[in-house]
Amino acid sequence: MVCTNSNVNEIRKDYLLDRWVIIASERAKRPKDFVIEEKKIHKGTCPFCPGNISMPIIYKRGEPWVVAVVPNKYPAVRSEVSMQVQKGFLEKMNAVGFHEVIIETPNHSDQLENLPASHILEILRTFCDRTKMYMHDERVNYVSIFKNHGAAAGESISHEHSQLIALPVIPHDVKMELEKSESFRREVGVCPFQAIYLRERRSERLLLDHPHFFALAPFASMVPGETWIIPKRHVQRIDHLKKQELEELASLLKTVLTAMKKLFPGMPYNIAYHQSPRGKDLHFHIEIYPRVTKFAGFELGSGMFINVLPPEVYATSFKKVVT
Amino acid sequence: MVCTNSNVNEIRKDYLLDRWVIIASERAKRPKDFVIEEKKIHKGTCPFCPGNISMPIIYKRGEPWVVAVVPNKYPAVRSEVSMQVQKGFLEKMNAVGFHEVIIETPNHSDQLENLPASHILEILRTFCDRTKMYMHDERVNYVSIFKNHGAAAGESISHEHSQLIALPVIPHDVKMELEKSESFRREVGVCPFQAIYLRERRSERLLLDHPHFFALAPFASMVPGETWIIPKRHVQRIDHLKKQELEELASLLKTVLTAMKKLFPGMPYNIAYHQSPRGKDLHFHIEIYPRVTKFAGFELGSGMFINVLPPEVYATSFKKVVT
Repeated sequence: MVCTNSNVNEIRKDYLLDRWVIIASERAKRPKDFVIEEKKIHKGTCPFCPGNISMPIIYKRGEPWVVAVVPNKYPAVRSEVSMQVQKGFLEKMNAVGFHEVIIETPNHSDQLENLPASHILEILRTFCDRTKMYMHDERVNYVSIFKNHGAAAGESISHEHSQLIALPVIPHDVKMELEKSESFRREVGVCPFQAIYLRERRSERLLLDHPHFFALAPFASMVPGETWIIPKRHVQRIDHLKKQELEELASLLKTVLTAMKKLFPGMPYNIAYHQSPRGKDLHFHIEIYPRVTKFAGFELGSGMFINVLPPEVYATSFKKVVT
Repeated sequence: MVCTNSNVNEIRKDYLLDRWVIIASERAKRPKDFVIEEKKIHKGTCPFCPGNISMPIIYKRGEPWVVAVVPNKYPAVRSEVSMQVQKGFLEKMNAVGFHEVIIETPNHSDQLENLPASHILEILRTFCDRTKMYMHDERVNYVSIFKNHGAAAGESISHEHSQLIALPVIPHDVKMELEKSESFRREVGVCPFQAIYLRERRSERLLLDHPHFFALAPFASMVPGETWIIPKRHVQRIDHLKKQELEELASLLKTVLTAMKKLFPGMPYNIAYHQSPRGKDLHFHIEIYPRVTKFAGFELGSGMFINVLPPEVYATSFKKVVT
């Protein structure tokens, strides 16, 4: 039998995708010639603090606001350009879409997990409203919501925020998840994310089991501390969650991030919200990636990952610190 | 007409893969709250300097050696474990394979691009011999060769080296390239990498056109300064290159890296050598990724990329500094 936590490394496949991960805990011991220091600098004023915001506030919650949405000043995609497409060997289109910043708190020094669950709920409600609105625009085929926390995770402004990019195309990883979900449903008769719950509910990788959601250290975790939060009910998009589900999610997100930060103090991290593209059926879920290791030439050149922390070891530590 | 270098961002598709990149040059202007400093530290002795090497030298070139190969002390995969496979919803196998370090020079302070082309040729010959040898092992289905230079690129020891991992599985990205190559050949009748040359030879993205190889800033570059080096002849693996092709490649690699370092001084970078898996037909090529920006939540959550430097702008700068 192949054993976890022995000296034998494993190559594991994602539940759905053809993505292989080498679980190689010994590599964590290797020596390092480098230290990387991340320094916060304060050049002038923060553009996300109330009073400094130069972009129009196009959505807010609370008065005065506790969550505010502004257009991204340096957008990757724009709404006012026309939808021109060039087909052929060099395929391209104008970058049509919407790119906005969700400022998650007016207070510069707040950390997301220290906010009350009621405040985190306001952030999630913002994601719901914005997703719903953009899905009314027929040019939009996918709404990507994500968070970068810390410079190593690609954050440029340290005031807590998430971003939303509404896209005319379905991104590669979402397309793959979708295709594999569809074939799984055809073959097995259930949604693969519900199959994950049935298979993992009694495994050591289950982190938390709440009435409407579960948190999981996935079998083929790409990075140390990778954590997924998945609704038990088959829900396609964040705006399809019911009131009590959203309330539970806010509280669960706070619990999960608090425990993760105890294990990885000051961790840079990314959150990605995966939801269904237009007219498609993908089970909504959240993926959290601590960015405590680097993607190197192997990962970039192969699409395979080497992870030095087995998810079972992470899950054991998580359950010791979670409250 | 969709224009490059205008204010309109573009969403571009890779020549082959379903991988979309948003070319968004304006985002390069956004302010930053962080500075990242990479410091080299020297804790004790370098394990790759002659005299300090604790692992057995299993291959070398020159006497005394100019290039030496040692097993990786912290291997991701191992040759002495048995080939056990677990199928089903949780699919995994023992991490069987070979993981080694190619020490590219005995001198700690050398930089790859400053070595004479004749020395770089010895490194490439090492890659050839090692690839050939591992492909004789029937458990090996793919030989991945890659280089991490600088901490931001995942390098842990700063003495110049590359790594080779011989794998029992075909990594995701290689599998995708392979499938798309096969369907392209069926439909169009030629290898897509030869089609790339025919299409790009007169484009502004062509960086260098040598008798046996060309260097290219690819149409859907994922990162600023992404550079591919492709043989014009259809070659499946690095060890299938002829003597004069290998000599040209050594010299071209030196030229390309020298120019790139002029544009991105001190750049961390990765090199990935893509070659054919066992029994498959993928056109051998080299991909070089400067690591001057970060992969953030959008990239991790979607598999799409935002690149702030259009390849045409990079190519123009490259051609000004290349000698």
